[in-house]
Amino acid sequence: MSDHPFDQAIALQPSGGDRMVGQTHPAYANMVGPYGGITAAVMLNAVLQHPQRLGDPLALTVNFAAAVAPGGFDITARPACTNRSTQHWVLELTQPDAQGQPAVVGTGTAVTAVARDTWASNDTPMPQVPSAAHTLRQQLGFSVEWVKRYDMRPCEGMLPSHWDGSGSSSLTRQWVRDDPPRPLDVAALTAMADVFYPRVWLRRAKLVPAGTVSFSVYIHADAATLAAVGERHLLVQAQAQAFHKGFFDQTAQLWSPDGDLLAVSHQLVYYKE
Amino acid sequence: MSDHPFDQAIALQPSGGDRMVGQTHPAYANMVGPYGGITAAVMLNAVLQHPQRLGDPLALTVNFAAAVAPGGFDITARPACTNRSTQHWVLELTQPDAQGQPAVVGTGTAVTAVARDTWASNDTPMPQVPSAAHTLRQQLGFSVEWVKRYDMRPCEGMLPSHWDGSGSSSLTRQWVRDDPPRPLDVAALTAMADVFYPRVWLRRAKLVPAGTVSFSVYIHADAATLAAVGERHLLVQAQAQAFHKGFFDQTAQLWSPDGDLLAVSHQLVYYKE
Repeated sequence: MSDHPFDQAIALQPSGGDRMVGQTHPAYANMVGPYGGITAAVMLNAVLQHPQRLGDPLALTVNFAAAVAPGGFDITARPACTNRSTQHWVLELTQPDAQGQPAVVGTGTAVTAVARDTWASNDTPMPQVPSAAHTLRQQLGFSVEWVKRYDMRPCEGMLPSHWDGSGSSSLTRQWVRDDPPRPLDVAALTAMADVFYPRVWLRRAKLVPAGTVSFSVYIHADAATLAAVGERHLLVQAQAQAFHKGFFDQTAQLWSPDGDLLAVSHQLVYYKE
Repeated sequence: MSDHPFDQAIALQPSGGDRMVGQTHPAYANMVGPYGGITAAVMLNAVLQHPQRLGDPLALTVNFAAAVAPGGFDITARPACTNRSTQHWVLELTQPDAQGQPAVVGTGTAVTAVARDTWASNDTPMPQVPSAAHTLRQQLGFSVEWVKRYDMRPCEGMLPSHWDGSGSSSLTRQWVRDDPPRPLDVAALTAMADVFYPRVWLRRAKLVPAGTVSFSVYIHADAATLAAVGERHLLVQAQAQAFHKGFFDQTAQLWSPDGDLLAVSHQLVYYKE
């Protein structure tokens, strides 16, 4: 196994049948529990490691039911339906409760599929922004551990420096790569789809409690395309569409530095006040 | 129960524990199996009918694993985790296989939550289009049954009249309501999020086999807002972001005629050639 903290954080050991066991990693700690992107990546990794897997990940939905406590966890990845070229997965993340019984802390589904050559088109061109080399890395006054695991270079919509309620847009565009650098793969791409601080902070220029409830990623790139990105930065963008009674949604796009739309993502986020 | 075909199609009977039984309805038949939107709505209805439900639907993901055969089906809606104000659901749709054993034809998850008053903002204004009263209803040369259950009035991106490969955009904007009219609720709204013909047909002006694989809806409206829409048309819009190796994604928005963003949706769709 690689020494990279990302590989350590998503490592799983088979535990019989569709079950695997993993461990939270301090390098990806968030304010409460781990970074959501690393939890989604380790749940995807349970599919990737499953001996019955058919094809590559296409769609992943992860719902964050409760904070993941530091320590061990179990993931069940069950192939519920296998067709000729697609496979449907049901995912569950559990940790022992106070009585030692498994309690659900995350649910999810995934779809994998065998790639087929077809007509293709990227209808969402990469926005025109300065290159990663010409964009400054974000320096934060505060910092939780997971933020240090990403080299983030915002071009637009950076974290407000004054929490004065003056916000008007929720759009962030930034370059991002793992820190230390690591060759891109589908697990790392999945984690990067959650790399944005809560849109409500930017939209309102106000710090309020917020946390992802439901997170989906749709993959538009094959393994060769991801491998060709290597350790270069991705350009990633996120924006909220509406804020309503304690929840907003976030639509996100992730491009290779060559302009390929590698993945899109959608999430629903809880916020207070 | 209402006589409306929508209510008949999503009707469920308790069958012990978390299980309910339903029946496909010929009024919502598609080329193969039922309209995906009605399948999503009946899976959501299993949550709505569950005696342990907490709050209203917020997020729903349904994955279409296999064609639903005409006849009976079972839906299991299991509340996997219940918190103070949110609840996480795991959904499964099964039908008997050739040996009479339950086979998974759909998987899914849902999140319900108790509404809380907070700061709110609709950051996605309704596009400027002619009113529903001033827009002609779509008349199709061919028609599957479910299409007749919707009064659809396209403003932009109507079904191509010539399949000559001349397409350039995948954006459709249209007014839609149930036919016969029916007061809007969250189940009907969910079904309407899937009302668009495959984006690949429009983008390429070419008829190719296509079908939804994974479908998510995020609700931004409470029951009172939906009730206030009544039987009026919604303005709905859908667009693909990328087409890659047999799958494209579709982002969609649904507005009330008053301009409220009621729901957003994302789906991943299989296509051939």
